[in-house]
Amino acid sequence: MKKYITSSSNKLIKDLIKLKNNKEERFLIEGKDLLDLAYLNNLLEMVITTEDDDEFNNVETIIVPKFILEKLSNNKSVQPYIGVSRLPKVSSKLGDKLVYLDGVQDPGNVGTIIRTALAFSYDGVILSKDSASLTNSKVIQSTKGALFSIPLSNQVSLKELKEQGYMIIVTSLEDSINYLKTPKFDKFVLVLGNEGQGVKKENIELADTVVRIEMGNIDSLNVAVAGGILMNHYRG
Amino acid sequence: MKKYITSSSNKLIKDLIKLKNNKEERFLIEGKDLLDLAYLNNLLEMVITTEDDDEFNNVETIIVPKFILEKLSNNKSVQPYIGVSRLPKVSSKLGDKLVYLDGVQDPGNVGTIIRTALAFSYDGVILSKDSASLTNSKVIQSTKGALFSIPLSNQVSLKELKEQGYMIIVTSLEDSINYLKTPKFDKFVLVLGNEGQGVKKENIELADTVVRIEMGNIDSLNVAVAGGILMNHYRG
Repeated sequence: MKKYITSSSNKLIKDLIKLKNNKEERFLIEGKDLLDLAYLNNLLEMVITTEDDDEFNNVETIIVPKFILEKLSNNKSVQPYIGVSRLPKVSSKLGDKLVYLDGVQDPGNVGTIIRTALAFSYDGVILSKDSASLTNSKVIQSTKGALFSIPLSNQVSLKELKEQGYMIIVTSLEDSINYLKTPKFDKFVLVLGNEGQGVKKENIELADTVVRIEMGNIDSLNVAVAGGILMNHYRG
Repeated sequence: MKKYITSSSNKLIKDLIKLKNNKEERFLIEGKDLLDLAYLNNLLEMVITTEDDDEFNNVETIIVPKFILEKLSNNKSVQPYIGVSRLPKVSSKLGDKLVYLDGVQDPGNVGTIIRTALAFSYDGVILSKDSASLTNSKVIQSTKGALFSIPLSNQVSLKELKEQGYMIIVTSLEDSINYLKTPKFDKFVLVLGNEGQGVKKENIELADTVVRIEMGNIDSLNVAVAGGILMNHYRG
């Protein structure tokens, strides 16, 4: 399934350029490692490459000159493979250990939290609509491939999760207790808030427990660091 | 101590532009919050601003048109204050709880680790020469002001610290034990390694204990997240 394209005014190339920084279900990924992961998870739809090889069998492969890859890339030094990938489907049945991102906006933080959730065997990461998009290229890069290996969704509200019987653990500096003094739960959602504003008031009101990490000199931790400490604690 | 400059070919402005992304002792900081912190710590040497006010008494203040601030800024939307700051002096006597960054290269990671070290009351962060520079604008931004409140140095080797009686705790995925099974120490250095390569072999050889964080699905944590979990544990 190979095809050769040498003009950047080709309609397919123009459509691909539109996928750069898009917010849709299909998105571009860069670098062979990420393409391998998407391929293994049956999520790779197309390969655009300067290499005339058969690395990705059964996937439509477009051979292009380097300048076209450069047009598609978000990086300064373009890698020889760019892919079009889909997001993993979220099954209607979510697992018992979830992380909920309530307006986490820095793409690096969102990606790092997804990576940590996978490392600590969480069952999924739910993102509020005002969190950074899963198809943002910096989110994808920061997940280091975890994106393809853990269920992700931006279609579930915290209220719905509470109705499904999840214990809601919210992080907040105010009216909270030291997380080390809280029990662990079998079925829970750990809620991490926006970098500046924290968790939204309506979500704090859903909390079964509101926790904080004790600090010394300043009450300030990066949300991915705080999230990592709490995910590590509650994973059981 | 006010001065008005309206030309970007002015020699002072040209010298300031050279400070952008410099690797020297003096560096540019942006935004009133950071300038306030530098001022409080007696590290602010000069203010360049579009505001004709007396916010920073006793500090040389240069009033400029907005286009000159834009030439000095690393941000797309420039803030009305840019400052020239020095790094805090490191006293020859370091405290008992230190973090050592062995080739940590992502500026966001370096800044986040410095911020976490301050929050968890560490006494200082030491950076190897091949770590991201303390005067990199992204490092400064990620510290969220912690830069001015915790001793930092890139002039001390891990070998010297060992000779000074610090217990050396190195993080590594190989030949390591679960950090939860290690004792805590009164005087120690927690060593965090490069994002891809980990801690250098010669530094692993200096270790008194080599630790890892147990993971489930993938052996992969962001270094600032891993550092946060371990700093939180060992702070005692």
